[in-house]
Amino acid sequence: MPILTLTDLAHDLWTDSLALSPANLGLPTDQDWSITKRTLRGGRRDGVDLIRLHNGRLSIDIVPTRGMGLWRGQYRGDRLGWSSPVVDGPIHPGLVNLAGLGGFGWLDGFDELLARCGLEHNGPPVQDGPFSHGLHGRIQNIPAHLVTVQVSETPPFELIVEGQVDEARLFGPRLRMTSRYSTVPGSNRLVVRDEFVNLGDRPARLAALYHWNFGPPFLENGARFVAAARTVVPQTRRAAEGIGQYDTFGPPEPGFAEQVYLLQLIGDGPDGSTPAMLRSASGTKAVVLRIHTSQLPCFTLWKNTMGPNEGYVTGLEPATNYPNPRPFEQRHGRFVELAPGGRHLVEMTLEVLDTPEAVAAVEAEVKALQDRAAPEVSEAPREPFSPAT
Amino acid sequence: MPILTLTDLAHDLWTDSLALSPANLGLPTDQDWSITKRTLRGGRRDGVDLIRLHNGRLSIDIVPTRGMGLWRGQYRGDRLGWSSPVVDGPIHPGLVNLAGLGGFGWLDGFDELLARCGLEHNGPPVQDGPFSHGLHGRIQNIPAHLVTVQVSETPPFELIVEGQVDEARLFGPRLRMTSRYSTVPGSNRLVVRDEFVNLGDRPARLAALYHWNFGPPFLENGARFVAAARTVVPQTRRAAEGIGQYDTFGPPEPGFAEQVYLLQLIGDGPDGSTPAMLRSASGTKAVVLRIHTSQLPCFTLWKNTMGPNEGYVTGLEPATNYPNPRPFEQRHGRFVELAPGGRHLVEMTLEVLDTPEAVAAVEAEVKALQDRAAPEVSEAPREPFSPAT
Amino acid sequence: MPILTLTDLAHDLWTDSLALSPANLGLPTDQDWSITKRTLRGGRRDGVDLIRLHNGRLSIDIVPTRGMGLWRGQYRGDRLGWSSPVVDGPIHPGLVNLAGLGGFGWLDGFDELLARCGLEHNGPPVQDGPFSHGLHGRIQNIPAHLVTVQVSETPPFELIVEGQVDEARLFGPRLRMTSRYSTVPGSNRLVVRDEFVNLGDRPARLAALYHWNFGPPFLENGARFVAAARTVVPQTRRAAEGIGQYDTFGPPEPGFAEQVYLLQLIGDGPDGSTPAMLRSASGTKAVVLRIHTSQLPCFTLWKNTMGPNEGYVTGLEPATNYPNPRPFEQRHGRFVELAPGGRHLVEMTLEVLDTPEAVAAVEAEVKALQDRAAPEVSEAPREPFSPAT
Repeated sequence: MPILTLTDLAHDLWTDSLALSPANLGLPTDQDWSITKRTLRGGRRDGVDLIRLHNGRLSIDIVPTRGMGLWRGQYRGDRLGWSSPVVDGPIHPGLVNLAGLGGFGWLDGFDELLARCGLEHNGPPVQDGPFSHGLHGRIQNIPAHLVTVQVSETPPFELIVEGQVDEARLFGPRLRMTSRYSTVPGSNRLVVRDEFVNLGDRPARLAALYHWNFGPPFLENGARFVAAARTVVPQTRRAAEGIGQYDTFGPPEPGFAEQVYLLQLIGDGPDGSTPAMLRSASGTKAVVLRIHTSQLPCFTLWKNTMGPNEGYVTGLEPATNYPNPRPFEQRHGRFVELAPGGRHLVEMTLEVLDTPEAVAAVEAEVKALQDRAAPEVSEAPREPFSPAT
Repeated sequence: MPILTLTDLAHDLWTDSLALSPANLGLPTDQDWSITKRTLRGGRRDGVDLIRLHNGRLSIDIVPTRGMGLWRGQYRGDRLGWSSPVVDGPIHPGLVNLAGLGGFGWLDGFDELLARCGLEHNGPPVQDGPFSHGLHGRIQNIPAHLVTVQVSETPPFELIVEGQVDEARLFGPRLRMTSRYSTVPGSNRLVVRDEFVNLGDRPARLAALYHWNFGPPFLENGARFVAAARTVVPQTRRAAEGIGQYDTFGPPEPGFAEQVYLLQLIGDGPDGSTPAMLRSASGTKAVVLRIHTSQLPCFTLWKNTMGPNEGYVTGLEPATNYPNPRPFEQRHGRFVELAPGGRHLVEMTLEVLDTPEAVAAVEAEVKALQDRAAPEVSEAPREPFSPAT
Repeated sequence: MPILTLTDLAHDLWTDSLALSPANLGLPTDQDWSITKRTLRGGRRDGVDLIRLHNGRLSIDIVPTRGMGLWRGQYRGDRLGWSSPVVDGPIHPGLVNLAGLGGFGWLDGFDELLARCGLEHNGPPVQDGPFSHGLHGRIQNIPAHLVTVQVSETPPFELIVEGQVDEARLFGPRLRMTSRYSTVPGSNRLVVRDEFVNLGDRPARLAALYHWNFGPPFLENGARFVAAARTVVPQTRRAAEGIGQYDTFGPPEPGFAEQVYLLQLIGDGPDGSTPAMLRSASGTKAVVLRIHTSQLPCFTLWKNTMGPNEGYVTGLEPATNYPNPRPFEQRHGRFVELAPGGRHLVEMTLEVLDTPEAVAAVEAEVKALQDRAAPEVSEAPREPFSPAT
């Protein structure tokens, strides 16, 4: 199958809707996959393009208009994502004022399974010289200018959605992100592959953080975060209060103040990747991110077990750096330096597990990695991980 | 008639256009009412949904895209509203930068008969902890996510338009406003019923102000504000200059600096409501708001008799509180405290009068209320009404 | 031919598309002109109206949605404009946050041949009393509310596109710009005629700057700026470094820091106008602006010969004033004072030259003007041109 182009602004091409299925491609119909695209109408989602990539078991909503972010997903009846107080998303970036609320306007559009943070900055609001940067940066609120769909014609009939988003302006950086999502009919996996290129003529810095967000049924009282940690540091004193139970989750608790932990993971698993898992209390369900610490050396765990109506959610956040104020990260040299034309590749897999055996297998994987070194757990915030306040 | 849903984002429903009339509902056609909905195109109104509710005599333009605000109305040839310098509205919220102009960006969209202010904040721009709040808050620039229309099938064949707007985000309040407008064919009344609910898990504060704005033919040289006042306090020294004539209006005056008066009304009219009237100089026309001081205890009168091209207008503004900086209002405990799940109901009627008899009857009503207590009129700003500068 | 109205919000008129040609008007078809209008879809240009005015040789893209700015043009195969890092424009104003990036958000939409700066302010970000103003003001990001097209039915069959943009709000200025572009089939000229009116009741100040931007093939190593200068002052110390070669351009240089020169031109050419030319190194191509110093007394030359991927561009910027902070310009009385109803007219011609003879003729014109007075060139920034830092 040729590549289908849904959006290509360089050629002034834009497609109103698309519905692909095995039947209309003349492919084997024993798998019930589909790829559909439409433009949402009404309210704050008016004009937002949505691509639903459904492999027959795993369904993922991709939002080109929101920086190729993932709105939410579904796996055999289980919701992937969380219940945000924002209930009318995906919100059009034109209605997200990143300079609003003192730099916290990003939260107006935050309801997603995967929100990328970056690319110039991915931490809290900060003034940096003459420029102000809002919470978590801009990439999630920049519409893609190129979007394509492809279905492989030979087994395993891989389904691919790709998009390109530029964070670029005069006097600023000129960074391009090419995001590729792929999955195989019937599988429990979504592969994410992002390539970042410095299209400018000068060296540039890249800050990228993958804000994966999960609520029930994976997050629940007694759920656990399972990953092979080399280091665990609380970002704040508030986080330090919970350092003893940093990897277990409590029930929804109205007024719970977020706790953030900054981790280094042991990264050299058998295939070069390392798993980071959120498993349900009983160990019958889990979501796993497989990441490469060479690509994303910093891992942030965001515990936000607030009340059920305000955002009972945890964030698993592999990143190039930690979400600290930009000057702090710069001082610690954690941004990726890209020469002109330089590239940074990020590959990641999301797996959804729904049997105790599958969950236990990943736990065994983590244990094997963790056995190489005991985790060094800090009782308090400390440099270079976070400002030691 | 079943409820017609025009927008319901939870079910991804949005209706491009609608035209209801007695004929197409099989109802008595002796009244010439209609309800139409369309999406405006072009310029700064591109993508704005507009519902025109016309009861045969009174016509009201409802704007779901602008927080269910009222753009303008018409009653037997008289315009309800005012002539704003903004002539190309209703302006799409995506083109109103609330953080712009140092927090005064709200004015870019201000051209309305009824603009709601709130819900977190309804006063001037202010920094409050890490958060900044722009002039008059956000609710007027948040599109509704649920909009319905209903026509009662039995006399008096009430016409109803309802919409839901959320002011909600992670770490923020989660407030829902359900606004209901209703009128009866041939009547001179529009009933406004807003229910505010705290959908969050923690207590929340509500600030709601109804910025009703009128120009000619109701506002003119010699027009008067008529209401039973318990207290009248000028908000500023500038307002104090005019305290002696606070309830009468002069002609358009280029360069006129606004004067704002903070009132408590005597609220226990026969039906529990109290009228606040703007009457023309000759007393042949008037608009009346009937409000409940138990729901909206604070009343602000905004005199802005600038030149005819820059905004000759007065605001009648019943509210939960006064439009002072947020910390000041909080200190004086004027926000409505809502427990999780808690509700606050606001009911209000707009009446348009076009005979001397009708105007005189409301003046008599007011006089009867005012006879109970002489108004206490302050010569200068004073606490707790406004900062005594 | 009657005037064709494409947008007229006062009458709720908006046209989705238009395609005019000699054939469909019954005009002589020996000239291959066309005027087309469509609405762009997808990405950050979604919803942007674009009018292409093509006279058979000269093609110009007019963007009503971006303040009647000129996106880019083409003359016999030569591009008019430049290569911005913003490659997916023209960008919808709803996605340009003028308050973002500490007031530099304007750059997110900057990719144009002609970007107007103003009307309240046209310089760098500044706080002025309670109001903040972002870089270069607002006019370029305000959609037109009235757009018309007209073709003269008699030779030379002038092609005309006109639009109206208001910069107006309560408590603010109420300024209206009526922009008219015209050209004749087969010519190398575009005539720009802007009329600014103060629609308010009080005196108002007008700041208008025409940010014309050119890259290759007109800008190249050895290209020259040619105009009869009375005065040349570097805006900054950085600009002072290059004062000796202020009128010649180097090759693309990654990391080149912009240099800005503030000029007064000798204005009394034969027809009352004065030419400002950018000519290629060999003198075979040039673009010429013909301006009236009585209308636009200040001329800014912006040299920004950065690397080819980040914006190798020069700006020829005739204006009412210099792009300094607003209070500085106000102190020096350079804004145009408009009484209520007062008007300011700006007429300007863009000419494209593609023969050595044509270029030499303009050089001779400039020489004749320059012979009247030697240019006074400052070695350092100085008042009243710019703050003498």
